[in-house]
Amino acid sequence: MSVITLMTDFGIKDGNVGVMKGVIWGICPTAQISDLSHMIQAQNIREAAYVFARSVPYFPKGSIHVVVVDPGVGTNRRPMAAQIGDWFYVGPDNGTVTGLLERAEQSGWQTDFVELNRVEYWLKDISYVFHGRDIFSPVAAHLANGVSLHELGTPFNDPVRLQLPKPEQTKDGWRGEVTHIDHFGNISTNIRVEHLGDAIGQKENIVVRLNGIEINGMVNTFGERSVGEIIALIGSTGNLGIALVNGNAAAKLSVKPGDEIFIISDPKGLREAPPRRSEGGRDL
Amino acid sequence: MSVITLMTDFGIKDGNVGVMKGVIWGICPTAQISDLSHMIQAQNIREAAYVFARSVPYFPKGSIHVVVVDPGVGTNRRPMAAQIGDWFYVGPDNGTVTGLLERAEQSGWQTDFVELNRVEYWLKDISYVFHGRDIFSPVAAHLANGVSLHELGTPFNDPVRLQLPKPEQTKDGWRGEVTHIDHFGNISTNIRVEHLGDAIGQKENIVVRLNGIEINGMVNTFGERSVGEIIALIGSTGNLGIALVNGNAAAKLSVKPGDEIFIISDPKGLREAPPRRSEGGRDL
Amino acid sequence: MSVITLMTDFGIKDGNVGVMKGVIWGICPTAQISDLSHMIQAQNIREAAYVFARSVPYFPKGSIHVVVVDPGVGTNRRPMAAQIGDWFYVGPDNGTVTGLLERAEQSGWQTDFVELNRVEYWLKDISYVFHGRDIFSPVAAHLANGVSLHELGTPFNDPVRLQLPKPEQTKDGWRGEVTHIDHFGNISTNIRVEHLGDAIGQKENIVVRLNGIEINGMVNTFGERSVGEIIALIGSTGNLGIALVNGNAAAKLSVKPGDEIFIISDPKGLREAPPRRSEGGRDL
Repeated sequence: MSVITLMTDFGIKDGNVGVMKGVIWGICPTAQISDLSHMIQAQNIREAAYVFARSVPYFPKGSIHVVVVDPGVGTNRRPMAAQIGDWFYVGPDNGTVTGLLERAEQSGWQTDFVELNRVEYWLKDISYVFHGRDIFSPVAAHLANGVSLHELGTPFNDPVRLQLPKPEQTKDGWRGEVTHIDHFGNISTNIRVEHLGDAIGQKENIVVRLNGIEINGMVNTFGERSVGEIIALIGSTGNLGIALVNGNAAAKLSVKPGDEIFIISDPKGLREAPPRRSEGGRDL
Repeated sequence: MSVITLMTDFGIKDGNVGVMKGVIWGICPTAQISDLSHMIQAQNIREAAYVFARSVPYFPKGSIHVVVVDPGVGTNRRPMAAQIGDWFYVGPDNGTVTGLLERAEQSGWQTDFVELNRVEYWLKDISYVFHGRDIFSPVAAHLANGVSLHELGTPFNDPVRLQLPKPEQTKDGWRGEVTHIDHFGNISTNIRVEHLGDAIGQKENIVVRLNGIEINGMVNTFGERSVGEIIALIGSTGNLGIALVNGNAAAKLSVKPGDEIFIISDPKGLREAPPRRSEGGRDL
Repeated sequence: MSVITLMTDFGIKDGNVGVMKGVIWGICPTAQISDLSHMIQAQNIREAAYVFARSVPYFPKGSIHVVVVDPGVGTNRRPMAAQIGDWFYVGPDNGTVTGLLERAEQSGWQTDFVELNRVEYWLKDISYVFHGRDIFSPVAAHLANGVSLHELGTPFNDPVRLQLPKPEQTKDGWRGEVTHIDHFGNISTNIRVEHLGDAIGQKENIVVRLNGIEINGMVNTFGERSVGEIIALIGSTGNLGIALVNGNAAAKLSVKPGDEIFIISDPKGLREAPPRRSEGGRDL
């Protein structure tokens, strides 16, 4: 019984996501299909890459992840399937896999890429504008049925990669960027718990600055502060986050993706251990 | 393993769609259930009919489609189940099936309609206001379990039909209507690729007019033009569409369903082959 | 084949709900998972309790309901699993189960509560901020696999309960409160059909007052009145509701949860039978 997820910028009102499920079940009737998100901002590949990288590791080995945020549909951008570690990606070769690829390289996971070109695994009629339905869903379903990656197309090894911003060390800490604003208005950044090194053991000494405000000391969770306070904490996938207890931090602070954020801490703690990703949460 | 889809105007916040799934799984535990849309505009049967007609053909044979956009719930409108071609409909007899019925007639598919009145296939207590839960979900689940259409009620042959607008030929092309605005703001119309006949081979000569603007030449896909340009193209189900590359065409052009649109083309090409629907995309 | 539902205030854009499904399928690959709602207002436990109580009874016996509206995540609020009648709850001990517990007590259903503390049924790494993923989803999956409630933690018998407002009898009827506004703008209240007793047989004599307006007579369903009329009726789970035919009553009347509502009726009918919940809709 295979798991397939769908992530798109299609929204939820037009039936297109349902149609993809219909196509999948027509080929692989037992697939367990989950939506990941269909509210990715239109054409925002970077947001898709962010949600993809942090979500996929929680899915079972062998799960197949279809992502269709695809401004280049119908042009000569490559349709692609890939194995990255224990999981499969199916979608356009447009950089969506960048974040997970970085993690694969840090963790020594295997990767394998094919350009989809075996039309016998696609729908018979291919539109110019909906490859999610015509190519990617049927390919995912055939993968779920046990067709191997290399039967689906021609191997290649230069997938498109996004230039994701990296935190930079400063004299007293790190400069990072806001990467995502979630449904609650919580702010995620690209500074990770590993950047903080031993300093994380003395949360009360850490200072965070963004958009003209300064947060003194970090906390572990929301309930440690009163409703209405701005807090800094490590989010559920290890990234530095800023939140407003029971409120919308991004709205209150007028923060948006790309804004810069500084973290200032005990220089000793910050400069020791090189940043390295934990395997946090992957093992059940 | 049967596929059941759900389409409603219920929205996604109140739990009512989940409840329908609970009722279905109580009767048919193995059903594969997909949402089609729950964001149909309240009471907008025409929008439901549009999404229904273009989505259903991508689902496996025997799939069951529950649609509850039902302003007449609890009155004497007929509850109905139908077989249309290879698929089943369960919902009110209010015209939702019109578009798919037209396609069935053009394609020579079988159709069969019953008025639901066998209460042993319903929940025990029937509310006046939620037949989606009390009648349509249990009926769909029993269909999925193999109960035949004719066990569920009394056959009839005059389902309610909507008056869907048809394109009209003009001296130099066709006059049609906007039928749908999607999540991206892409505009769909009732003019189909078949209306264009051979003219579709010379896309650069086609002119489209709507709401005071003129689009010269059609394209195959978004990536052929620059970000911010208005384009005309054939959408994924064969209808003429208007889009703004990486933007919202409907907002920019202030277009809404019902607005008129003109297509002007080589008269020779336009007047030849009579409009006829393709079977596009149905075969896997 | 077990049914698991998910209800949260996470919204649908960030992938967190999908991640919970990934965790569940990693442990229980055959689980049938349904969303109940992910649009509960942020931190609004009362709204979660309302949707929970009215939705769960429509799910099959043994179904497992994960609810994560959890402002106290990471603090010392208890993580909990419970059996209430034929169904299971997994989530924080914060009052979400209050409405269903009241119904259990009125109906004589069994209840059983455990504080989750057997970490072998959790993910290996537990974040401070996402127990829905790290604790509640894996526990639900193990329950679906047949692990018994008492293997998951330590029994207790004092779950947190919300103070839900109760209708009060007046000299000529009842005073209640608005409990929920649905997607359509329909208004639900805590006055139930059982409060009306025999008076419900003479709907035309009942008067409803809220926010300065008076509705004379109740109806069974929307289609009995013209588009644009305000109506009072019994909703699909037995509560008094107010609606605007084909419109948004809450917007038109500027009504919000907590607003008071009065129902005036034949005093004889109203004061007879003590309020008692029907088993409406539970039996298939």
